[in-house]
Amino acid sequence: MDGILDTIGGPADLKRLTLPQLEKLAGEIRGLLIHTVAQTGGHLAPNLGVVELTLALHQVFDSPRDKIIWDVGHQAYVHKILTGRRQRFGSLRQMGGISGFPKREENEHDIFGTGHSSTSISAALGVALARDINKEHYNVVAVIGDGSLTGGQAYEALNYAGHLERDLTVILNDNEMSIDRNVGAMSGYLSKLRTDPTYYRMKHDVEYLLKRIPAIGERVANTVERLKDGLKYLVVPGMLFEELGFTYIGPIDGHDLVSLTDVLQKSKHMKGPVLIHVITRKGKGYAPAECNADKFHGVGPFCVESGEVIKNGCNPAYTAVFGDALVEIAESDQDIVAITAAMPEGTGLKKFAARFPGRFFDVGIAEPHAVTMAAGLAAEGKKPVVAIYSTFVQRAYDQVIHDICLQKLPVVLAIDRAGIVGEDGPTHQGVFDYSFLRHIPNLTVMAPKDENELRHMLYTAVNMSAPVVIRYPRGSGLGVDTTEPYRKLDLGRAEELRAGKDVVLLAAGVMAAPCLAASDLLARHGIRAGVVNARYIKPLDEQLIRKLAREVGVIVTVEDNILAGGFGSAVLEYVNAENLNWVKVFRVGLPDKFIEHGSRAQLLAKYGLTGEGIAAVVAQYMQRFGVR
Amino acid sequence: MDGILDTIGGPADLKRLTLPQLEKLAGEIRGLLIHTVAQTGGHLAPNLGVVELTLALHQVFDSPRDKIIWDVGHQAYVHKILTGRRQRFGSLRQMGGISGFPKREENEHDIFGTGHSSTSISAALGVALARDINKEHYNVVAVIGDGSLTGGQAYEALNYAGHLERDLTVILNDNEMSIDRNVGAMSGYLSKLRTDPTYYRMKHDVEYLLKRIPAIGERVANTVERLKDGLKYLVVPGMLFEELGFTYIGPIDGHDLVSLTDVLQKSKHMKGPVLIHVITRKGKGYAPAECNADKFHGVGPFCVESGEVIKNGCNPAYTAVFGDALVEIAESDQDIVAITAAMPEGTGLKKFAARFPGRFFDVGIAEPHAVTMAAGLAAEGKKPVVAIYSTFVQRAYDQVIHDICLQKLPVVLAIDRAGIVGEDGPTHQGVFDYSFLRHIPNLTVMAPKDENELRHMLYTAVNMSAPVVIRYPRGSGLGVDTTEPYRKLDLGRAEELRAGKDVVLLAAGVMAAPCLAASDLLARHGIRAGVVNARYIKPLDEQLIRKLAREVGVIVTVEDNILAGGFGSAVLEYVNAENLNWVKVFRVGLPDKFIEHGSRAQLLAKYGLTGEGIAAVVAQYMQRFGVR
Repeated sequence: MDGILDTIGGPADLKRLTLPQLEKLAGEIRGLLIHTVAQTGGHLAPNLGVVELTLALHQVFDSPRDKIIWDVGHQAYVHKILTGRRQRFGSLRQMGGISGFPKREENEHDIFGTGHSSTSISAALGVALARDINKEHYNVVAVIGDGSLTGGQAYEALNYAGHLERDLTVILNDNEMSIDRNVGAMSGYLSKLRTDPTYYRMKHDVEYLLKRIPAIGERVANTVERLKDGLKYLVVPGMLFEELGFTYIGPIDGHDLVSLTDVLQKSKHMKGPVLIHVITRKGKGYAPAECNADKFHGVGPFCVESGEVIKNGCNPAYTAVFGDALVEIAESDQDIVAITAAMPEGTGLKKFAARFPGRFFDVGIAEPHAVTMAAGLAAEGKKPVVAIYSTFVQRAYDQVIHDICLQKLPVVLAIDRAGIVGEDGPTHQGVFDYSFLRHIPNLTVMAPKDENELRHMLYTAVNMSAPVVIRYPRGSGLGVDTTEPYRKLDLGRAEELRAGKDVVLLAAGVMAAPCLAASDLLARHGIRAGVVNARYIKPLDEQLIRKLAREVGVIVTVEDNILAGGFGSAVLEYVNAENLNWVKVFRVGLPDKFIEHGSRAQLLAKYGLTGEGIAAVVAQYMQRFGVR
Repeated sequence: MDGILDTIGGPADLKRLTLPQLEKLAGEIRGLLIHTVAQTGGHLAPNLGVVELTLALHQVFDSPRDKIIWDVGHQAYVHKILTGRRQRFGSLRQMGGISGFPKREENEHDIFGTGHSSTSISAALGVALARDINKEHYNVVAVIGDGSLTGGQAYEALNYAGHLERDLTVILNDNEMSIDRNVGAMSGYLSKLRTDPTYYRMKHDVEYLLKRIPAIGERVANTVERLKDGLKYLVVPGMLFEELGFTYIGPIDGHDLVSLTDVLQKSKHMKGPVLIHVITRKGKGYAPAECNADKFHGVGPFCVESGEVIKNGCNPAYTAVFGDALVEIAESDQDIVAITAAMPEGTGLKKFAARFPGRFFDVGIAEPHAVTMAAGLAAEGKKPVVAIYSTFVQRAYDQVIHDICLQKLPVVLAIDRAGIVGEDGPTHQGVFDYSFLRHIPNLTVMAPKDENELRHMLYTAVNMSAPVVIRYPRGSGLGVDTTEPYRKLDLGRAEELRAGKDVVLLAAGVMAAPCLAASDLLARHGIRAGVVNARYIKPLDEQLIRKLAREVGVIVTVEDNILAGGFGSAVLEYVNAENLNWVKVFRVGLPDKFIEHGSRAQLLAKYGLTGEGIAAVVAQYMQRFGVR
C-alpha cells in the first residue's frame, strides 16, 4: 500500500492533514476495510459507516488523553487502524491477532472494552466522574448507535448523566439500523429529527412573527411568555434529549468532514452533557454493503468484486434449521409466537416473520423486555419462543428467573450461538449458559446432539407447558436428515448412542459428535468407550446415570461450557447426592478463564473439545486409573 | 370491623358505591393497612399512597377480565384487600399467609407476579399482544411508579409499546420517590410537568393569539404552520411520552376519586398506548409515613400511635456495619467511591453519602448502569464499591461478567440481603448468587462469618486491585466486637474455627455460627465435628480441603444458597478434579425450588440451616456411613 495511510502512526498524525488529504485517507481506509474483511470476515458495514466520524474524532480530540468509548465496539476498526494497529489489521479476529472489539489490554486508545450494546454511556459517565474527582481536564466521548439506544441501559445512563450535568459528549451514530432495520418509537422520533428542515432560519422567522403580536392583557401576555419558552421545541430539535438534560446538536451529516470537525470542535468547550446526532450510512462507499447492510453487518469472507459471501460449510446451520422448524410447527399451532431482540436474521426468524407477521415481534436490542414480554404473552395462553444468542441471554438472567421460571410460564428460550462462538471472542462466547441456567428452579434445559434433534426438541418444548431452554451452537449442523416427522422426546431421558464397557462419554448437546469420534479413536487403543447423548442438562437422566455407574463405572462428561457449575457439575452433584461413590466421574469442558477469539475449529481444538482432544484426555485418565 | 369494607367481596361491589361511600371506604382501608402492617411489617407508605388509585381502577375496570399489572408489586395491598383477600390480610407476609406481592397462584386478580421493578409495561404489552392475537377485547393496565421508570427495562417497553400502537394504559404513579428521593433527569422532567399550570386555558389563549398574527409572505406562513404544530408542546405536556408514541394525560391528583374515575373512564375507550400521569403522596393519611416515607417504604412492626419501629434484634445489622466500615476505610483512601441503585438507606450508604457527597452516587433503580459506571470509574483509577441486594445483582449479571470481570477492573460488589431474606419471599431471596457468580473468571467471592469479618473483607477487597464480591445477609450480626483494626485477609485462605476428628463442617459465610452450634450438639452424640469458616467461595482454600480430606475424611459443606452450582458444588468439583476419592462430601443447602415467604428464622429452620437442622442431617449422614 502507498498513500496517506502509510504516514499515520497515530492520531497525532491526523492533525496536520488538510481536508482533501483527510478525504483521500477516508478512501484508503475504506479500501483497507473492504479488502481485509473480505479475507477475515467481520463487521464491515458498521465500520464503513463511521470512517469520517472516526477521522473527525481523532483529529479533534487527543486520544488517549481524551477518552473515546465505542458502544458495542464492532465499529472500532477504523479507530484501530488510526491508533497504531494498521500493520496488524490483517490479523483482525484471527487467533492471536487483533480483536474485533476495543480491548483495554490491546491498546492504550481502547480505554474501555465493549462488545455487548448500550454500555458506553454508563462507562463514559464513570470515566467522567473519575476525571472530576481527580480534578483532571479532558474530554470523554461515547459513540453509540441508534440501535444500541433501544437498550434500556443506555436510557438509564442518559437519565443519570442528564441529572449529574458533568461534561460528557455522546455521539449518536444514527444509521437507522440496529443489525437489521431499527425498531421502536425512539427510532421514529430520530427519523423525524432527520427529516426536519433547517432550524436557524426558523428561529429568525419566529422572532419576526413574535414582534408582530400586538400587546394585550396580562393573561395573554403570560401565554406569550410560555409561547416563547415553547419555541425552543421549534428551534431546538431533539427536545426529548434536552428534557433528559442533554444539549442536543444535530442532525449532522456523518460523512461531511467539515461539519463533523466543526461541531466536534465546538462541543469540546461546551459545559454539561451534550448529544451530537450524526447521520451515517451503514456500508458507505461499498455498494454491496450499502444495498444490503444487514448482510454486511457481520459477514464472513466474501468476494470484493461481486459482494458474494464465500460459503463455508455445506450443511444447513442450526439457526436455519431452527427457523424452518419453527415455521413448520407454527403452521398447526396458532398459539406459537416468536420474539427476537434485533436479530431476525441472526436467529433464523426472518421466515417466521414473513409467514406469520402478526405473531412475530422484533423488540430491538432489549433482551430483558423481550423475556418479560414473552412471559406476558404466556400468561394469556400464547406459546412464545424467544430466540436470543447465549451471550445476550446473560442480560435477561433476572427476567428468566423472576418472570418466567418463578411463575412457571411456558416460554421457550431458543439459545443460539451457545458454546464456542469463535472470531467475536470473549465478549460473545456462549460458555456460561449451563452454569447460569441449570440452577433456576422449574426450568428444563435441553441441548440437541444435531440439527435434527433440535427440531424434535423445539416440538417437545412448545408442547411442554413449562419454561424450557434449548441451547445450540453457531454454525453448520452435521448434515443429517431433517425431514422426519416431529416427535416429542421423553422428559429427562438421555439417548444411548453407543455401548461401551470401559468408560462412557456423557455428551452435552453437540459434544455428542466429537464424543463418537473420540470413541472410535479410543477403540484403536483398546478402550471400549460408550457414548450417551445427554439431551437434558436439567433434569438429568438419573436412572441412566445410575445404570452407567453400575455397569460401566467410569463416566466422562463432555460440554462446551465452563466447567464451574456446568453440566459435569450437575452429574457430580447427582452422583454425590445418591452416594454412588464407586463411580469415577471425569469432567471435560472449558477452564476458568475467558475464551479468546479465533476460529471455532481452532478454539475447540485448543480446548480439547474435538474427537482427538477428548480421546487424548480420556486415554490419559484411564491410564492413570489403570482401567484399560 | 364494621363499615363499608365488610361489604366488599370483590371489585364488583365497588361499582354500586357513591362517592362519599368510596371516600369512607378509602379511610377504612387506610386503617386496615396501618394496623395490619404495624403487626406484620411491610410496604406501608407505597400502599397508603395508592388507596384512591386502586379504588378508582377497580371501580372503572373489570378485573380480572381487564388486566391490572402492578409494577414492583409492593403497592398491591389495597388491590389484595379489594379482591377477596381482606379476611386473610392479617396473614400478610407471614409464613403460609398471603404474599406481599402479586402472585398468580394466589388469586385470579393477580394476573402477573411482580417484585423486581420496571417489568410491568413489558408484561402488560405481552398481555395486550395476546389479547389482540386472540381477537379478544379487554383493557390492559400497568401501574408503574416514577421510581421504577428509572429502570431501563421500563424504557425498553415504552419504546416498543409506542412503536406497536396497541391499546394499553400505563398509569404513572408519581410520588417523587423511588424508595428514597427519586433521581435522574426523568424525575426532573416529571417535576416540571407537575408544577405546570393548567393547559386548557393555555390552549384557548394561544388560539386567540394566533388569530392576531397578520398574514405575511409564504416563508413566514410556513413558519406559522410549524408554530401551530409546535403548540402541542405547549398545550400537551408530557411531550417526551408523546414522542415515544404514547398519548399523555395528566397530571391528575391521585387522591381525588372524581378526577381519577373520570380520566380512567375516558381512557378505556382511547386507542393506542396511553400514559396517565397520576400524582400521589407516599404514606398519605398516616402522618409518620407522610413525613418519613423512606422509613415507611418497607418497615418492620411499629407502634401505630408513635410511628416508632419496634426494634428487632439488638446487634447492629450487617448493613450498618458495612456502612460504618466503608466510611472509616474511605477516610484514608481517597480513591474509594460508593454507588447504590436507589437504596442509600437499605444498603447502609447514607453515612457515606453525608460524609463524602462528591464520592457517592445514587443512580436510581438501574443496576446494569450502576455496575458498568463503576467499571468506568475503576478504569480511571477509582475503587468503586457498589452495594446492591443479592436479588437485584441478578439484573446486572451480564455487566459483572462483561464490564468488570473480563476487564479485571477493581470493582467491589457489596452484596447485601444474600441468602434467606424472609418476608419478601421468592422474588427477593438472595439464594442464587454463589451459583451465578462463582463461575465467572477473574472474580473473587468472599462471605464473612460475622459482621467483624465483613469489615476486614471490605478492607481486603478495596486493596485487592481486582474484581471482588462480598456477600452478606439481611439482619443483625452476632454482636461481636467491631472495633479491632482493619487487616487484610490472605487470598483464598479459610479459617479453622474448631478442630474435629469425625467430620468437618465447611461453612460458607454466616453459616459458620449455626455450624458451631451444630458441632456442640453433635458432640453430645459423640460426634467430634470440626468447623471451618470458608471465607472464600472462590478461590477455594484448596490446601486446607486437601488437608481435611486427608485428616478427617468427611466434609460437610453448609451454605444458604441453592445447592445446584453453589459452594458445595465448588468443593465437589475440586475434590473430583484432584481425585480425592476417599473423602466423603455431603452438601447442605437449599433445594431446587423457589423459597417461599416467612420470617428468616422460620425459613432457616424449615430448610435445616440452623444448628439443630445441620446437626440432625450430619448425624443422619454419619450414621448412614457408620462413622461415629
